[in-house]
Amino acid sequence: MTKQLKGIAASDGIATAKAYMLVQPDLSFSQSTIDDPEKEIDRLHDALDQSNGELKIIRDKAAESLGEEEAQVFDAHMMILADPEFTGAIESKIKDDKVNAETALKSVSDMFIATFEAMEDNPYMQERAADIRDVATRILAHLLGRPLPNPALIDSEVIVVAHDLTPSDTAQLNKKYVKAFVTDIGGRTAHSAIMARSLEIPAVVGTQEITTSVTEGQLLTVDGLTGDITIDPTEDQVAASEKEAKAYADQKAEWALLKTAKSVTADGKHFDIAANIGTPKDLDGVLANGAEAIGLYRTEFLYMDSAELPTEDDQFEAYKKVLETMNPKPVVVRTMDIGGDKHLPYLPLPEEQNPFLGYRAIRISLDKQDIFRTQLRALLRASAFGELRIMFPMIATIQEFEAAKAVFLEEKAKLVADGVKVSDTIQLGMMIEIPAAAVLADQFAKHVDFFSIGTNDLIQYTMAADRGNEHVSYLYQPYNPSILRLIKNVIDAAHKEGKWAGMCGEAAGDPIMVPILLGMGLDEYSMSATSVLKIRSLMKRLSTADMAELADKALNDSISNDDNKKLVEAYTK
Amino acid sequence: MTKQLKGIAASDGIATAKAYMLVQPDLSFSQSTIDDPEKEIDRLHDALDQSNGELKIIRDKAAESLGEEEAQVFDAHMMILADPEFTGAIESKIKDDKVNAETALKSVSDMFIATFEAMEDNPYMQERAADIRDVATRILAHLLGRPLPNPALIDSEVIVVAHDLTPSDTAQLNKKYVKAFVTDIGGRTAHSAIMARSLEIPAVVGTQEITTSVTEGQLLTVDGLTGDITIDPTEDQVAASEKEAKAYADQKAEWALLKTAKSVTADGKHFDIAANIGTPKDLDGVLANGAEAIGLYRTEFLYMDSAELPTEDDQFEAYKKVLETMNPKPVVVRTMDIGGDKHLPYLPLPEEQNPFLGYRAIRISLDKQDIFRTQLRALLRASAFGELRIMFPMIATIQEFEAAKAVFLEEKAKLVADGVKVSDTIQLGMMIEIPAAAVLADQFAKHVDFFSIGTNDLIQYTMAADRGNEHVSYLYQPYNPSILRLIKNVIDAAHKEGKWAGMCGEAAGDPIMVPILLGMGLDEYSMSATSVLKIRSLMKRLSTADMAELADKALNDSISNDDNKKLVEAYTK
Repeated sequence: MTKQLKGIAASDGIATAKAYMLVQPDLSFSQSTIDDPEKEIDRLHDALDQSNGELKIIRDKAAESLGEEEAQVFDAHMMILADPEFTGAIESKIKDDKVNAETALKSVSDMFIATFEAMEDNPYMQERAADIRDVATRILAHLLGRPLPNPALIDSEVIVVAHDLTPSDTAQLNKKYVKAFVTDIGGRTAHSAIMARSLEIPAVVGTQEITTSVTEGQLLTVDGLTGDITIDPTEDQVAASEKEAKAYADQKAEWALLKTAKSVTADGKHFDIAANIGTPKDLDGVLANGAEAIGLYRTEFLYMDSAELPTEDDQFEAYKKVLETMNPKPVVVRTMDIGGDKHLPYLPLPEEQNPFLGYRAIRISLDKQDIFRTQLRALLRASAFGELRIMFPMIATIQEFEAAKAVFLEEKAKLVADGVKVSDTIQLGMMIEIPAAAVLADQFAKHVDFFSIGTNDLIQYTMAADRGNEHVSYLYQPYNPSILRLIKNVIDAAHKEGKWAGMCGEAAGDPIMVPILLGMGLDEYSMSATSVLKIRSLMKRLSTADMAELADKALNDSISNDDNKKLVEAYTK
Repeated sequence: MTKQLKGIAASDGIATAKAYMLVQPDLSFSQSTIDDPEKEIDRLHDALDQSNGELKIIRDKAAESLGEEEAQVFDAHMMILADPEFTGAIESKIKDDKVNAETALKSVSDMFIATFEAMEDNPYMQERAADIRDVATRILAHLLGRPLPNPALIDSEVIVVAHDLTPSDTAQLNKKYVKAFVTDIGGRTAHSAIMARSLEIPAVVGTQEITTSVTEGQLLTVDGLTGDITIDPTEDQVAASEKEAKAYADQKAEWALLKTAKSVTADGKHFDIAANIGTPKDLDGVLANGAEAIGLYRTEFLYMDSAELPTEDDQFEAYKKVLETMNPKPVVVRTMDIGGDKHLPYLPLPEEQNPFLGYRAIRISLDKQDIFRTQLRALLRASAFGELRIMFPMIATIQEFEAAKAVFLEEKAKLVADGVKVSDTIQLGMMIEIPAAAVLADQFAKHVDFFSIGTNDLIQYTMAADRGNEHVSYLYQPYNPSILRLIKNVIDAAHKEGKWAGMCGEAAGDPIMVPILLGMGLDEYSMSATSVLKIRSLMKRLSTADMAELADKALNDSISNDDNKKLVEAYTK
């Protein structure tokens, strides 16, 4: 029976393939006594062998996509499978108690887990307990003939169906086989959605019910442009979807021709289309899509991907790599933005009632200046290798900006005194993501070299609605006239002082938002690398005069997000 | 040794008295064997008697200040003291094991607690375990000669010193004896600070170190106007402080003369000074201080002080009482504002990462319309008895306001159809506490009858800083020009559409804020009843032309909270 579902379009593209359920199977079983222990022991050995084969594949794939360190846990799992003390105990249990293999496995693994867990002060033993739990689950799954799904095991074309995808699940998706993914929860700004766009895998998220509506192997068509999903499509539907996929592929080919073009409007005005990156690894995508700059380098990944504070030299190498690769194109580096929902294992932060309204980003940097100074020194040293721009996140007051700037100037003076070569043309800017800064932009503009608007946070504070909270998700309204007015105020304030204004939030790559932003005169648009060509193509079709008229209506006549969405659609179709 | 401390001035007034340490004493003790069990048993009985006498006083005072229901827990404590099974077991332990009374008490009470706590599914037994823990602590305190402090036990003039004060501690402070209180933590907008102002007890909060700097009985002078505290003051300092206290008392007497006066500026312009209330009990203070209206009736106390949802009739009685008492003066009632940090035991809300950015206030009312409709019906029925104005909290979009208004109109139509008498002049307004609403005030003004600005939330969202989080408390900046600009935008938008704008946050009663607000033309100032006369007196000294000049500078030339504070001080001294 054909069935339609609708979710949130999270990554462009259209695909048809069978469902691969990345969902924990039901592993319940009954305890039973048996007559033939040898048969049960054979079943056990089969399950052990299957588990071992599977773990080898998972281990190798994990080493490839996540790194050797992440892969080592699977070595530990395989060692348990090969441990005669463990497997021997299960065999004895089967023979002595005349129970089925499932029961014997459960009893023995529970006993091992309890023993290890009792050694409370020994983190090593605690980890062994977790390993045994994982391995026992895997063996049980094979005994029951309901093996655990794993992205590393996918070896044919599928559409992955999951409740949610963890960052490590997503990192292991192989573009060759995974044609799309669909989840129950999440939004366009969820980590998995951002990853999907960067991997160019079509994705629909937040369907609420995909995991309960689909079973393994059912055919699906997924439209990541509209959020539409068809379960068990008819032949006609498959044909129609393939036609759309073809049209989209043609469009992408056309976009690809724009790779070396400048970003200009129909009336010949030039704007910068830049890309956001998290690590130097993302540079390939930036180059492949012809971005004119890096508008946001999120340095917190340097801190989050590390077991301790990254050294000045580690940071210097990363910054240098990015600046050298992009040179002479500019690179905007945002200083450490942790806190909120981002934590570092080695830097304990206070427990907070409302972390998004708490101790984060520049508030931490100005408080823990040793960390901040190390980052600024690394950036200053790297500045000799390209066109560096630095921006501070979560600035609420001019005092904060001036304090951050003073630290920067101190570190610069020290390096110069030590004879280190640093650039003299580093621009210092700030994120506009706190309403206070947007309202007071005219005053801030006298102090900064540039603004970069972060829409996710600006929207969440201006609407007083946590963007990750489903109970208030209806208030995440990028086109709400109040948001647009704040953005306009920032752009005008920058221009009045001869400064430039960019945007590095999700909205900068959104085909509904870009026309309004063009109409307001935003100078730089920084987005996922994979959106660059699409937006460059869109820009070519728009004239600044029309968009200025559109923006005027959106700012002054409109009272709602939906009105403005319709307005843009009418102006750009 | 005289020592100075500085905290946050939280409630006006000056006092000198000895410190009463409302701090848990050190109750550690050594286990020892004894030769004379009878002597230990006598010690035990003395401690039991002292505990019982104390509990009687606490119980009676609690019944008086908190109500019978709250007092019953102390009855339960006294029953334990009188229970021979409990006290007999302690005596036997002393005799049998030859241990001191402290050891026997600990051993027996631990055993009882463990027994009751083991009955996990029985909430009654869980409470008994807690009772025994509390009683055992009290007896132990007497055995050790270090009795537990309690606000109910204060019977001479003191200054209460505490780490923090709970709402129930504060409710039990007897103005006759408690001349002031001082705490380690908290800010001007903490519950205890608000209560102190309502009780007219001088208070200084957030000293960081008062509990570690002072010991029981040390002399203190506390200045709730400046936040200054002197420990062990010299005779001259005491004399100076008494002189200041006298001057303050004189000033209060002068203010009292304004009770029946209108609130007018030096140049004869009239503005409304209104009071905030939480329950009909607060009406006495409103009348005693001559407020010209109620600018905020916080109805959530009706819900929070109840064990289940208050019925329509319960609500009707409360609203009627307030409207009748104030008639013909207007009463602005805010519909239920729960969620955030306010929870109802009978209405489970979702767990949230950032409750201040979550499901609260009108967002709940529009989602759970049965609760909202009951409240609106009660309000509509009460409207016949006075001058009712209704406002909706946490409005972010015009759609939300219109949805709330539609529900109101539906309920009104139903009541009219049923022949119930309702007023036809009820004004419908909204809180401005979300930046989006402040920015879009010109559009909102076409839909509402009035605005009331809630500064606490408006500041916390505009600055992206939780007002309860000490790590970002420096960002709670009421005079930040960004906040003032949003307020100005709201006032101008209201006036342009012929509507009025008030303020019901803490700032409306703040002598630094009021001059700026006057300069911007704010129509209504709603504050703690105890601030009304002070602000009326201040207003008499200010001219609107001077204040308009001041406001213009504060809005356009200033870049910081501190600059604006100094600016007002220069203009008003």
